[in-house]
Amino acid sequence: MISKNQLKLLRALAQKKYRKQHGLYLVQGQKNVQELLTANVAIEQLFASAQFIAEHQAQLQSIQYIETDNESLTKASTLTSNSAAIAIVKFPEPQAINESGMILALDGVSDPGNLGTIIRVADWYGFKQIVLSDDCADHLNPKVISATMGSFVRINVVRTNLPVFLSRYDGAIYGAFLDGQSVHTTAFAKRGVLVMGSESHGIREQASQYINTPITIPAFGGAESLNVAMATGIILDNIKRSS
Amino acid sequence: MISKNQLKLLRALAQKKYRKQHGLYLVQGQKNVQELLTANVAIEQLFASAQFIAEHQAQLQSIQYIETDNESLTKASTLTSNSAAIAIVKFPEPQAINESGMILALDGVSDPGNLGTIIRVADWYGFKQIVLSDDCADHLNPKVISATMGSFVRINVVRTNLPVFLSRYDGAIYGAFLDGQSVHTTAFAKRGVLVMGSESHGIREQASQYINTPITIPAFGGAESLNVAMATGIILDNIKRSS
Repeated sequence: MISKNQLKLLRALAQKKYRKQHGLYLVQGQKNVQELLTANVAIEQLFASAQFIAEHQAQLQSIQYIETDNESLTKASTLTSNSAAIAIVKFPEPQAINESGMILALDGVSDPGNLGTIIRVADWYGFKQIVLSDDCADHLNPKVISATMGSFVRINVVRTNLPVFLSRYDGAIYGAFLDGQSVHTTAFAKRGVLVMGSESHGIREQASQYINTPITIPAFGGAESLNVAMATGIILDNIKRSS
Repeated sequence: MISKNQLKLLRALAQKKYRKQHGLYLVQGQKNVQELLTANVAIEQLFASAQFIAEHQAQLQSIQYIETDNESLTKASTLTSNSAAIAIVKFPEPQAINESGMILALDGVSDPGNLGTIIRVADWYGFKQIVLSDDCADHLNPKVISATMGSFVRINVVRTNLPVFLSRYDGAIYGAFLDGQSVHTTAFAKRGVLVMGSESHGIREQASQYINTPITIPAFGGAESLNVAMATGIILDNIKRSS
C-alpha cells in the first residue's frame, strides 16, 4: 500500500522544483528499477509488485520495500502503466568532469526523450559520462530516466557552464554541423570533446567558437537533418570504429 | 474557416479505419506541408494560416486552399500546436518492390514514432523505399508523417508479406541481431535486404529463417540494446560508408 503522504511525495517528484527541494528523484518500471538494484544504488523507498518482489528476492534482501498492487503503482507513476516498481532515490553526488578520453557534451538539448536516448547510446558505446550545458533538460526527469532503459546507472552526468569548460579545455573539440568534414574520413583523437547541439538551435555561438574540428554525417538523400539523438549515435559509432 | 463537415473529416482521418475508408491521409505542420508542396504531391484539401499562405504564394498558385486561423488549425490537427497548415492527401498508388540495390525491410515495427524516424534516416542515406511487414505501424498515421520531418514524400513504402518476399528474394539478406558479425567489418553487398525487427520481439522466426548474414552493432558499454530507429540509422551509415 502507498500511503497518502507517500503518494504526495511520488507525485511531487515528477516536478523539477520538488526533486531539487527534496534531493530525490524517481526511477520507475521493470527495467530501470532492476538496473538500480544491479548497480547497488542506495534506494530511499521502494514500492514493488508481488511479482517484481518474487523475481528479485536475492537483491531485495537488504532493502526495505512496500508491496503494492499494479493499479496503485500505475496511479502513482508517470508511466502509462507500471506493474513492476517505483524507487525513490537520492540525487547522486556531484562529480567533476573526467577529462581523459573522449567526452560527449550537449549544448541546449532540452527534449527529455532525446536526452534519455543519448544517455542510452552513450552507454552502448562505453562512455562513462556526459557533460550538459546548464540549460539542457533535467537528467533526473522521469522521462529521461525511462528513455535511458537503465543506462542512467552507468553514466555520470555533469552539468556545467559549457562555454567556460570548452574555453579551458586543451584538446581537440569536435562539433556536429551540417557542413563540417565527413565523420567517415575523420581520424578522431583519443582525447577530445564531441559537442552536439539541439535540433532547433544547433550548437550556439557561445560554445561553437571553441570548436576546432566541425564534423558532419554525410548525407546521400533528401532529408535536411537528423534527430540529435540519432546523430549522436551515428557519430559515436564512427568515433569507436576509428579508435 | 473550417466547416463542421471538414472538421469531422479531419478528425476522422486521425484514425486508420477512416483513412482506409476515404483513401485519404493527413499531412500537418510547417515542414511536412512544405515538403508536400515542393514535391508536387496532389493535395485534396488545404487549410493554411495567413502566414503560411504568404510564405508559399508561388507554390500555392495552382492549389485551392482555405485560409484558417491558428486556433482552428490547432483544434483540427493532432499536433499540440499548428500555426501553419493541414493538408488532406490521397493515398499513394501501391507500387511493387524495386529489387535493385539495398532494400530496408522492417519486421513488426509497431511504434509510429520509430517508423517515422526510420523513414527520415533512410531518406538521409538516400534510400527510396522501405518494405514493411503487414503488421508494422500504418505509415500514413499522422504520428509517423510528423516524425519523418518531410521525408515521407521521398520514400516509397511497400507493405507486404515479409516472409514470402524474403523466401523469393535471391540476394544477400542481412538481419540485425545481438550476436551477428560486426557491422564495422562487414563488406555489404551492393544488392541485398537489411531486415530490422522491433525492440520487443526482434526479427521473428518466420522472417529470420531467411537471413543469411546476421549482423550486430558492436557494443562497448553496458546498454543491452538500442532503440530500433537508432540501430537502423547506425547500420545504414555502415552500409553507406562501405559502398
